[in-house]
Amino acid sequence: MSDTQIAVSTGLNRWALRIEYDGTGYVGWQKQHEGTSIQGLIEAAAAKLVRNRAVPSITAGRTDAGVHAAGMVIHLDFPDDAPIDVRQIREGMGYHLKPHRVVVLEAAKVSPEWNARFSATWRSYRFTILNRVARPGLMENRVWHIKRPLDVDLMQQAADHLLGQHDFTSFRAIACQARSPIRTLDVLDIHRDGDLVMIDTKARSFLHHQVRNMAGTLMMIGSRQWPVEKMIDILEAKNRAAAGQTAPPEGLCLMDVGYSENPFQPV
Amino acid sequence: MSDTQIAVSTGLNRWALRIEYDGTGYVGWQKQHEGTSIQGLIEAAAAKLVRNRAVPSITAGRTDAGVHAAGMVIHLDFPDDAPIDVRQIREGMGYHLKPHRVVVLEAAKVSPEWNARFSATWRSYRFTILNRVARPGLMENRVWHIKRPLDVDLMQQAADHLLGQHDFTSFRAIACQARSPIRTLDVLDIHRDGDLVMIDTKARSFLHHQVRNMAGTLMMIGSRQWPVEKMIDILEAKNRAAAGQTAPPEGLCLMDVGYSENPFQPV
Repeated sequence: MSDTQIAVSTGLNRWALRIEYDGTGYVGWQKQHEGTSIQGLIEAAAAKLVRNRAVPSITAGRTDAGVHAAGMVIHLDFPDDAPIDVRQIREGMGYHLKPHRVVVLEAAKVSPEWNARFSATWRSYRFTILNRVARPGLMENRVWHIKRPLDVDLMQQAADHLLGQHDFTSFRAIACQARSPIRTLDVLDIHRDGDLVMIDTKARSFLHHQVRNMAGTLMMIGSRQWPVEKMIDILEAKNRAAAGQTAPPEGLCLMDVGYSENPFQPV
Repeated sequence: MSDTQIAVSTGLNRWALRIEYDGTGYVGWQKQHEGTSIQGLIEAAAAKLVRNRAVPSITAGRTDAGVHAAGMVIHLDFPDDAPIDVRQIREGMGYHLKPHRVVVLEAAKVSPEWNARFSATWRSYRFTILNRVARPGLMENRVWHIKRPLDVDLMQQAADHLLGQHDFTSFRAIACQARSPIRTLDVLDIHRDGDLVMIDTKARSFLHHQVRNMAGTLMMIGSRQWPVEKMIDILEAKNRAAAGQTAPPEGLCLMDVGYSENPFQPV
């Protein structure tokens, strides 16, 4: 090493990561006073690469306890003077994350202006229902088990009423901290594959519990406990009590996050 | 109850069951001196329905430790004088099998001549490979993790050489007890879905470890470590040492079993 190679702070040493995790048994993304969080595991693994200095993280979606992610995007701010490369993140963090079911799929250096949360232009989620009499064997912790037969066509008719821009107060957790209840739903597709009923949805952003509350409401309609038209009344009620139950977290999986500039292109 | 309703032995009180299980952590289908077997769990749950009298079982496929089943078929011989109905088997056994990841999907009374193993006309299996750099997160214990990129077209070309009737000695476990190494492979289809490579196969019956040995050999060809044409030499060698490794059990799942008469039709 020549002594001209002095580390110069060039602003943030920010990296985008795509990660996958099985949310079972964790307290969710966010660090908590008790229990193991995905964020805590990721930040601890990243710190191991830089002699245990702090590596703060931001996620595109703060998933709840038990919710899974197949393609979550986060960013990590490593110390400015720490030489980090893709291999270190993928292999080093991958090693330090063992034996947890949390893995790094992709990594890329990004500009200090790029932000995993605020630069995201859309998120997509899948909610999965196992629709049969027998409880889950192979799909335990991955699905919501509904014994009553679900009519997917009725669910789709009801879902279509939620597409576009609406006040989603009826589908918003009481504790939701978003300033506005207005969201624009771009996709809400329901399809069946054998015993599985999949609810795929996509929007710029979602309110807290919005997908799970939509799933709980669609279940009531698919099982013919509520008529399709009730979805219109629920939306117009702007009242959480009007909609169905919050479907359980284990059925939910964050599938993908979109950006106007894909950070994982080779730089 | 009138006293004319005396139980009359009408031969075997035989029931066909379709079951699903996650093989992780079990010693496989067959009862062993140590460890928990699927057979042991099923027979114990069935015995609970008949005051702990013995309920022997036969399966269509004796899966190894770690191998999964999405649609295995077995039969159970309840005591002749035990009044058993579908609801008892589905709900009662389902209850007694908790918290194990073993569930009863379907049940039907069958004739004493019907046999889950010997009446079966075909079995189908899926072997799943996760083909990416990162280890499995959501798919842990369900896939064989291969980092080297696999060429599915090369795998299919090689697979086509195995279709039809052959001496499968090269793909047969040394411990295999089948009298003949001749088998007829009806399906061996390989396709990719994102990072997953699925090997679907179907035959009247398979030799011990045949699917896992075919998967291990196809991996060598898909990763270009062996040429496609080597599959012909391997088959002709009639020597287990000529083929690839036995792929790990967690990638394998028994999908379905066929019968000339479907026992689960309403009777």
